[in-house]
Amino acid sequence: MLNFEYYNPTKIVFGAGTTATLSRLVPETARVLLLYGGASAEKTGTLADVRAALAGRVVHEFGGIEPNPSFETLQGAIAQVRAERLDYLLAVGGGSVIDGTKFVAAAAVYDGDAWDVASSRGAVVQRALPFGAVLTLPATGSEMNNGAVVTRKATHTKQPFRSEHLFPKFSILDPTRSYTLPVKQVANGLVDAFVHTTEQYLTYPAQALPQDRFAEGLLQTLVEIAPRALAAPDDYDTRSNLMWAASLALNGLIGAGVPQDWATHMIGHELTALYNIDHARTLAIVLPALLHVRRDSKRDKLLQYGARVWGITAGSEEERIDAAIERTRTFFESVGIPTRLADYGLGQEAVEAVLAQLEAHGMSKLGERRDVTLEVSRAILQHAL
Amino acid sequence: MLNFEYYNPTKIVFGAGTTATLSRLVPETARVLLLYGGASAEKTGTLADVRAALAGRVVHEFGGIEPNPSFETLQGAIAQVRAERLDYLLAVGGGSVIDGTKFVAAAAVYDGDAWDVASSRGAVVQRALPFGAVLTLPATGSEMNNGAVVTRKATHTKQPFRSEHLFPKFSILDPTRSYTLPVKQVANGLVDAFVHTTEQYLTYPAQALPQDRFAEGLLQTLVEIAPRALAAPDDYDTRSNLMWAASLALNGLIGAGVPQDWATHMIGHELTALYNIDHARTLAIVLPALLHVRRDSKRDKLLQYGARVWGITAGSEEERIDAAIERTRTFFESVGIPTRLADYGLGQEAVEAVLAQLEAHGMSKLGERRDVTLEVSRAILQHAL
Repeated sequence: MLNFEYYNPTKIVFGAGTTATLSRLVPETARVLLLYGGASAEKTGTLADVRAALAGRVVHEFGGIEPNPSFETLQGAIAQVRAERLDYLLAVGGGSVIDGTKFVAAAAVYDGDAWDVASSRGAVVQRALPFGAVLTLPATGSEMNNGAVVTRKATHTKQPFRSEHLFPKFSILDPTRSYTLPVKQVANGLVDAFVHTTEQYLTYPAQALPQDRFAEGLLQTLVEIAPRALAAPDDYDTRSNLMWAASLALNGLIGAGVPQDWATHMIGHELTALYNIDHARTLAIVLPALLHVRRDSKRDKLLQYGARVWGITAGSEEERIDAAIERTRTFFESVGIPTRLADYGLGQEAVEAVLAQLEAHGMSKLGERRDVTLEVSRAILQHAL
Repeated sequence: MLNFEYYNPTKIVFGAGTTATLSRLVPETARVLLLYGGASAEKTGTLADVRAALAGRVVHEFGGIEPNPSFETLQGAIAQVRAERLDYLLAVGGGSVIDGTKFVAAAAVYDGDAWDVASSRGAVVQRALPFGAVLTLPATGSEMNNGAVVTRKATHTKQPFRSEHLFPKFSILDPTRSYTLPVKQVANGLVDAFVHTTEQYLTYPAQALPQDRFAEGLLQTLVEIAPRALAAPDDYDTRSNLMWAASLALNGLIGAGVPQDWATHMIGHELTALYNIDHARTLAIVLPALLHVRRDSKRDKLLQYGARVWGITAGSEEERIDAAIERTRTFFESVGIPTRLADYGLGQEAVEAVLAQLEAHGMSKLGERRDVTLEVSRAILQHAL
């Protein structure tokens, strides 16, 4: 096991009907900015429930945070916080709204250029406004970690950052909030949580037995619930397991004491920034190709993954690895997410464009061994055509 | 999944050589009371390392906290904190020292009778001194939760309590600290962590898939590492997995959103209080008998446990349950811990004595369904003879 520090002070309040607990979770004297995305938070009644729980408090609102929240859009929220002297943020939505809220929490109290918060990967963040979240979309895990990604539209840059000051004080996870999600978003959530897990698991053996078992348990859970998650939107147990599994996949626990990869994410971010492909879909494109190209480096863990998650125990090592990768690809396809660049209308030109962006963003040493060079990324993208 | 709140702000610093981080973890201006147990902390060099990391600080010391820390002993530490106006506690040891430190943290700033802290099960605790821990014995999980047990020797009472104010600020987990432990204590730790897990897992199905997988993963890990944990005291990977698994077994995570039992612990506490049997050994006596007596109530989870942890898939339901219980008993025996009351020189008189204590302590409705009456406890104890 590698040395590690683990710290996660976010309080999780989980279950149907828990939005009312906002009245005790948000300090009474707080001057709140409620941040949300599109019309769905209004239409589903979530915003109404939130407003009711905070009735009588000072609550301002900022809507319109888009998927892959943009630096440009978030300027408006920062200005509003400063103009109204607000001191507490409440994100109502999925990972994009929560990520955007983290950016606002740090940037609103930062004295320099707001983009520094992201471009420094959070290093300049010395403090942040306190914030909580009401989660509506299980996927990114942002509700229980201190990381975020914002996009600068002007330069097609998706920039991850994190800071110990950016844990939500609390997150309310009510699985019924997910009942009205489009099937496509549920499928994206399944794949997002799955790949968050593999980024912290499919590396090289570090003799971290509980972490491996936990990661495998999350992958097994996601595979087990996927059919009903798509087919039965109001199955409470299924949606509960999806919501909690997605949080557990990226709350720091399964990644503590083990090597981490994240090359799939970094390559995927460029696909989103260039072609506006949903984040999870970029992961479904990149991961199977990456596992194929990196099969030697990841051999031991791929065999373990095949055996424990998919029950693959017969055949030569190469056959078992092939089967494990194929089952992964088939799983993504089974939830309706295509796994080839061609499925998104992209060809060789995309390979070149993504490589140019990776180079421009300093992404020439990716992966758990920092040996996913641009040439390796090229091989991965070629295999994903 | 049941509704739940999960909150755990303890920072874990894990790995060989991490004791030096005390210098940044303990506030510079803190007036520290360092609490420890017997001579081993001195002999192994742990205390020397701690003192070196805190050189130049105000550090007082209180040694002599015994296994099953007593209210009577801890009075001395409370008096010392008050006399020297100390404001930060540092536990160096295993679960007993950390539990005792939690009691001191709460009682030293409580205005009434110190025993109220325990007898109210923590309800009277409105605040506590901040404290950290340097763990030397993987077993109880106290280093990453807000619960503790203290014993009032005068009345043979083991009293559990907990409070949101009693999470350690940090815990340092250095697996090499466990190298010098007697084999008996390592065996106790394996069984303690195992039964902490089953108390939160072997109940009735709650459709909490990640929690089940995590619990099974911890049980599998403990079974897998047990032989080398006993035979190879300086195997870093094995001791790392034992230490981290024991913390994960009782940090609140696998118990969030699921029913919990704890009858084995409550019955076991009486055995310790009456006959001074090591805590883990009482669990090894009670659990197999409890599973046998409660087999109908726990049927579904016993079958799942048998299949997933022990690979038992052949035979009738009764046969599979018998096999799962037998594997559990054999596991405890395999680490050198006897599982019958007779092995500890106890017979029918102990059954009566424990029942009288359970009744005196209001323990007549135990278990995940609150239907472990005194008569059920009698059946369990009879089966454990």
